[in-house]
Amino acid sequence: MQLKWGIAGVGMIAHDFLTALDTLPPEQHRVVAIAGKDVDRVQRLATLHKINTAYEGYEQLARDASIDIVFVSVLNLQHYEITKLMLENDKHVLCEKPMGMTYKQTKSLVDLAREKGLFLLEGMWSRFFPAYDALEKHITTGGLGEVYHINVQFGVQINDIERNLMKDLGGGAVLDLGVYMLQLINFIYKEPPVDVVCTGHLSKTGVDESVSCALKYKDGRTATMAAQTRATMTNKAEIIGTKGTISLEYFWCPTVLHISAANSTEWTLPKGKYKFHFHNSAGLSYQIQECWDCINKGIVESPKMSLDESILLSKLTDTMRAQLGVLESEL
Amino acid sequence: MQLKWGIAGVGMIAHDFLTALDTLPPEQHRVVAIAGKDVDRVQRLATLHKINTAYEGYEQLARDASIDIVFVSVLNLQHYEITKLMLENDKHVLCEKPMGMTYKQTKSLVDLAREKGLFLLEGMWSRFFPAYDALEKHITTGGLGEVYHINVQFGVQINDIERNLMKDLGGGAVLDLGVYMLQLINFIYKEPPVDVVCTGHLSKTGVDESVSCALKYKDGRTATMAAQTRATMTNKAEIIGTKGTISLEYFWCPTVLHISAANSTEWTLPKGKYKFHFHNSAGLSYQIQECWDCINKGIVESPKMSLDESILLSKLTDTMRAQLGVLESEL
Repeated sequence: MQLKWGIAGVGMIAHDFLTALDTLPPEQHRVVAIAGKDVDRVQRLATLHKINTAYEGYEQLARDASIDIVFVSVLNLQHYEITKLMLENDKHVLCEKPMGMTYKQTKSLVDLAREKGLFLLEGMWSRFFPAYDALEKHITTGGLGEVYHINVQFGVQINDIERNLMKDLGGGAVLDLGVYMLQLINFIYKEPPVDVVCTGHLSKTGVDESVSCALKYKDGRTATMAAQTRATMTNKAEIIGTKGTISLEYFWCPTVLHISAANSTEWTLPKGKYKFHFHNSAGLSYQIQECWDCINKGIVESPKMSLDESILLSKLTDTMRAQLGVLESEL
Repeated sequence: MQLKWGIAGVGMIAHDFLTALDTLPPEQHRVVAIAGKDVDRVQRLATLHKINTAYEGYEQLARDASIDIVFVSVLNLQHYEITKLMLENDKHVLCEKPMGMTYKQTKSLVDLAREKGLFLLEGMWSRFFPAYDALEKHITTGGLGEVYHINVQFGVQINDIERNLMKDLGGGAVLDLGVYMLQLINFIYKEPPVDVVCTGHLSKTGVDESVSCALKYKDGRTATMAAQTRATMTNKAEIIGTKGTISLEYFWCPTVLHISAANSTEWTLPKGKYKFHFHNSAGLSYQIQECWDCINKGIVESPKMSLDESILLSKLTDTMRAQLGVLESEL
C-alpha cells in the first residue's frame, strides 16, 4: 500500500516532517500536495520537497480525492478547524499536538473521526520511538520494581518577542511543553491522576510562561513536572522505582535508554536529505510509519497513542490552564 | 571560651552529634550532661561518650547551672516543650529541625528566645556546610545567570512498620524531609513564595507519606519538590539558571560542589571516633562550630539560618500539611 499524504501547514515542523518522510520507503509513502495560507512558503516547500501540487488555503487540499491522510501542522489555534475540515472530507488525519486547544475541541474531533471510521492520531511522536518500547519493557518486567515517582522538566529559553507571540500562536507552557510531560507520565502510570495541582506565571497577554505541577496517583504514586520559557532545563525525565531510577535524556524524543553502565541502548536515527529545524526530528519517521502500519491493518486508532488518551490529556491541560488562570472563556 | 553542652535526647542523632562534637577542639566544646527518659540509654551514651552527668528526664538538665547550651534532639512532637523548658531556664538552645511542629509553636519559641536574649538555632545543619557557602558565592557572582527553577527530591524507602510509627514520632514527609527541601529553595530565592500548591498521600493514621509540591516566586521563578517514603529518590537538588545548571548531590549535607568538569570542589569531613548512623553526620560539626562562633561573638541568631527563616519555614510546612489534609486540629 502506498499512503498518499497531504500537508496542511508550511512551518518549520512541516519541513522536518517532509524530510523525515523522505527517509521512508517511497512505495509506502508519497506526498501528493501541500497547502498553506502563505503562497510563497507553500511554493518554496513544494519545490524543495518535490511536491507536485501546491494549494493556497486548505479547502482544495480537503477536496483533493487523491489524498488518503493529511498531516495537520498549522498553528495550535487552528488544529481544531483544519482537522475537522479534513475529517469531514473523509481524510485520515495526523494532527500535531495538542490536537485541540481544549477538551471540548479534542472530544469533538475524536467523536467525528469515530463516527466516520477514519484514522485519527495526535502527533505525540515520542510514543513511537523504540526507546519508549524498551522503557516499557524494562518497567513491565519489573526492572525498576514499583515506580513511585516521576519527575519531568522541559525548559526552553526564549526571548520576550517569542514569548509575546505565544498568545497568537495558541501556545504556552502547558500546551507546548506540558503535554509532552503529561504523555510521558501517563505512558508509565497508565491511568488518570487522582489530584493535579499547579502554579505558574502568566504573561501580560494571559499566556502561561511557566508551569510547575504536582500530581497524585493511586497507591502512593506521585509525579512532579515543570516547564519554563526563561531557561533551558535538564529536559530529562526521572522514573523512580523501588529497585532503581532511570534518567531519560531528551525524554520527548529519546534515542538512548541508559538503564545501567552495563545496560545501555542507543538507536540511530535515519539521515535526512536536508537539515532538520528541531532536535531529533528524523524520529518523526517512526510516527509516520505508525500511521502506515495502522492504516495498512485497517486500524483507526494507534494502540500506542489512543484517542481516549488524547481526550485525557486535553482534560488535564484544561485543568492546568484553569488553575494557572488562563482565560476561562478559552476553556 | 569553652561552651558547656547539655544533650536532651538519646536517639541516633544524639550519638552522631556527640561523635561529631568530639572532632572539635576540646578547649571550645565540652559536653557536661546528657538527659533522656530511658535511663539505660542515657547511661549507655554517657559511658560511650565519657559524659560525667546523666539525668533521667529533662528537668534536672534544665536546672544544671553548669550548662550553657542544650542540644534538643528529642522526638519532633516534644521539640516545643523541651526547647521551651531550656529557654525558660536561661539555656541557649540548638534544636533539631523542625523546631516546632507548627508555626504557632515555632513563633512562640522564637518570641521567648528573643525576649530573654538567648541564642536559639533550628538545627538546619545543611546551611553550615562549606558547599553551601561556595554555592552561594557561585550564584551571587552570576555563575548561573538568573536562576529560574529549582527541583529537589528527597526519598527514603522505609517499611510499613516505620511508616506507621511516624505518627507517634511527630514525623511525616513534610516535617522530616520537606523542611530540608524548603530551606534549600529559600537559601537560593531568599524570599517567600507567592504561591504553594501540593498534593500527596496520607497514611491510615493521618500522617503524610508522600508530598509533591509546586512553588511560584516573583519574576518568573518556580520550584518543584517531592518527598517519598516508598522509594529512594535521586535526592539531588537541581538549580537551573539562564547560564547553567548545578546538580547538588546529597543536597542536605553536600561535600561536593560540581560546577563543571573543570570546576569541582570536594570537602573532607572529619573522622569520628565512632561510626555515624546517618549519612555525612560528621558535618554536624559545622553546625556545632556555628553555635560557638555566634555565642563567642555575643550573637543570638545565626546569620546563616535566622529565626525569621525558621518562622517562614514553619508557615510553609503548615500550609503544605493543611493542603495534604493532615488533621487541622494539629495546626
